Amino acid sequence: MSPASFDVVAIGSALVDVLADATIEDLARFEMVKGSMTLVDLARAATLYEAMGPAIEVSGGSAANTAVGVAALGGSVGYVGKVAADELGEVFLHDITAAGVVLGPTGRVEPSLDPADDRATGRCLVYVTEDGERTMATHLGVASTLEPGDLDEDFVARAQVLYLEGYLWDLGPAKAAMRRAMQVAHEADSLVALSLSDPFCVQRHQSEFLELLHGDVDVLFANEDEVTLLFGASTFDAAAAAAEETGILAALTRGAAGSVVVAASGATAIPADPVARVADTTGAGDLFAAGFLYGLTHGKGPETCARLGGLCAAEVISHIGARPRADLRQLAGEAGLL
Amino acid sequence: MSPASFDVVAIGSALVDVLADATIEDLARFEMVKGSMTLVDLARAATLYEAMGPAIEVSGGSAANTAVGVAALGGSVGYVGKVAADELGEVFLHDITAAGVVLGPTGRVEPSLDPADDRATGRCLVYVTEDGERTMATHLGVASTLEPGDLDEDFVARAQVLYLEGYLWDLGPAKAAMRRAMQVAHEADSLVALSLSDPFCVQRHQSEFLELLHGDVDVLFANEDEVTLLFGASTFDAAAAAAEETGILAALTRGAAGSVVVAASGATAIPADPVARVADTTGAGDLFAAGFLYGLTHGKGPETCARLGGLCAAEVISHIGARPRADLRQLAGEAGLL
Repeated sequence: MSPASFDVVAIGSALVDVLADATIEDLARFEMVKGSMTLVDLARAATLYEAMGPAIEVSGGSAANTAVGVAALGGSVGYVGKVAADELGEVFLHDITAAGVVLGPTGRVEPSLDPADDRATGRCLVYVTEDGERTMATHLGVASTLEPGDLDEDFVARAQVLYLEGYLWDLGPAKAAMRRAMQVAHEADSLVALSLSDPFCVQRHQSEFLELLHGDVDVLFANEDEVTLLFGASTFDAAAAAAEETGILAALTRGAAGSVVVAASGATAIPADPVARVADTTGAGDLFAAGFLYGLTHGKGPETCARLGGLCAAEVISHIGARPRADLRQLAGEAGLL
Repeated sequence: MSPASFDVVAIGSALVDVLADATIEDLARFEMVKGSMTLVDLARAATLYEAMGPAIEVSGGSAANTAVGVAALGGSVGYVGKVAADELGEVFLHDITAAGVVLGPTGRVEPSLDPADDRATGRCLVYVTEDGERTMATHLGVASTLEPGDLDEDFVARAQVLYLEGYLWDLGPAKAAMRRAMQVAHEADSLVALSLSDPFCVQRHQSEFLELLHGDVDVLFANEDEVTLLFGASTFDAAAAAAEETGILAALTRGAAGSVVVAASGATAIPADPVARVADTTGAGDLFAAGFLYGLTHGKGPETCARLGGLCAAEVISHIGARPRADLRQLAGEAGLL
């Protein structure tokens, strides 16, 4: 690997997570659908935050979590995302660079002094229920302004794999930036990986995501609900078969039931790593992708990639927060996966 | 209880904790003494933060943690402390009010736009080593400006017990405010409780703290190191005997060895509650004080007060962060302490 290249460059919404314990009744009261991510405006975010219990702030953002996971395994990673020049922006930038991720040249945006203006660092209110599942309300703030002009094409072209989060398809200018980034990556002979992010995100963009599987995307990350919705399938097996027909590499996660990798060589099921207690599922998919991408960029076969993904996901759901706390590289070494 | 009164009013430095895992080698490299709290200026705080690993932000502040603990047990609590009108100030105010604590009328301070100016919300960099112990570097920011003018005397006079953190003696104007608050409390026939905060804080203010025991302070909270230093004693038993001679009520904590309450009726040792795994000792003393103060303001004898303190301390050291996550009132009820 030349020092000028990255195993992975990830692009996503840069967010700080605000995590609080919540009950099913809280979710009903706030009219939130358990397990989903909803985009909210500034006023709604303020109302929800006021009603939320005492919280913990921790850097998040789906693709950023994945980037940190790849770095924790020893991979070289770049990240592109937008924060404001405010305290939460400082927190985000500190945490991701302290984790060993190289930030792309996208600058910080000066926040507006007008409180009605929306240019603060994005935040994601995360409600953690007793079963460890998370329900999210995201106010993107300045992350919503990502656009083609923010893209440093040389930085993107340095990736072996360009990794994009599906959430970005919710935003017109960000989507345009992603289309350009995919072009840049393919011109550089890199792979493009896409995470479907969330079942509701798939519902919003089903036809576009399906089109992307024909030439734009080489590696697909999806959980059971997402892939079933994507292909309009009635069962997971039917969805996996539909994924196989596209000819791309698909890593499909099934929570406690493990994962299924669909590759040219067929589909392989991999059991999940045991977890003593699920504390917070935030970041499970993101860290699965991290392990998988590390394997993919280090010459591992699909099954080992999925095992690496499972190991990283198991670590992150065993504690609060969507970024690893344990030494993932050591854990992966002990499991004989490096 | 009339709705206009509080069981406890706590005064302290309002801080947001920034917690990261650290090794003994990290502490040596940053020239920090394990287990201590050091005040640092803005430049040093920035240098330390830059070198710190990925972190979690969670509201803290010694007396604020105690206030939240009392509220979690079902007590009525007021809090006086100063934050800036910035994002971390918003986080602090949200978390403490969401926990059921009533904020005193001290307003938020508009932060300066000059980055060299120090009027941001205070923060405490907390290094958590593998043994769960915490080492702290605090940049007080706007919390350092607490002064007599910030004190609403009617608010203070509504407390059954006024609770002060020893850290405030590091600051001239804050100390003046505390002297006035103690007067107000005693004029209202309230008790005054003082936490010694930190062994180094005791070293800095030994003679003043000793003087306070003669009429200004009715209840003393200290750990083994702090009380031994305070009385210049060679053993804990000698320090406890010296405390008994002062005639005040002293709650002395000894970590895993439990606590000793020194009252008019003599000294009583209470064993510590078992903890499966010490995750982070931040807040152990603060939450011991919370349980003790709840008992004291609800007609419990010294031994039950200490048992309540032990129960709250055991809960808070079993997880990351210095504020309770479990339902302390339920735990205390199950233990037969309410």
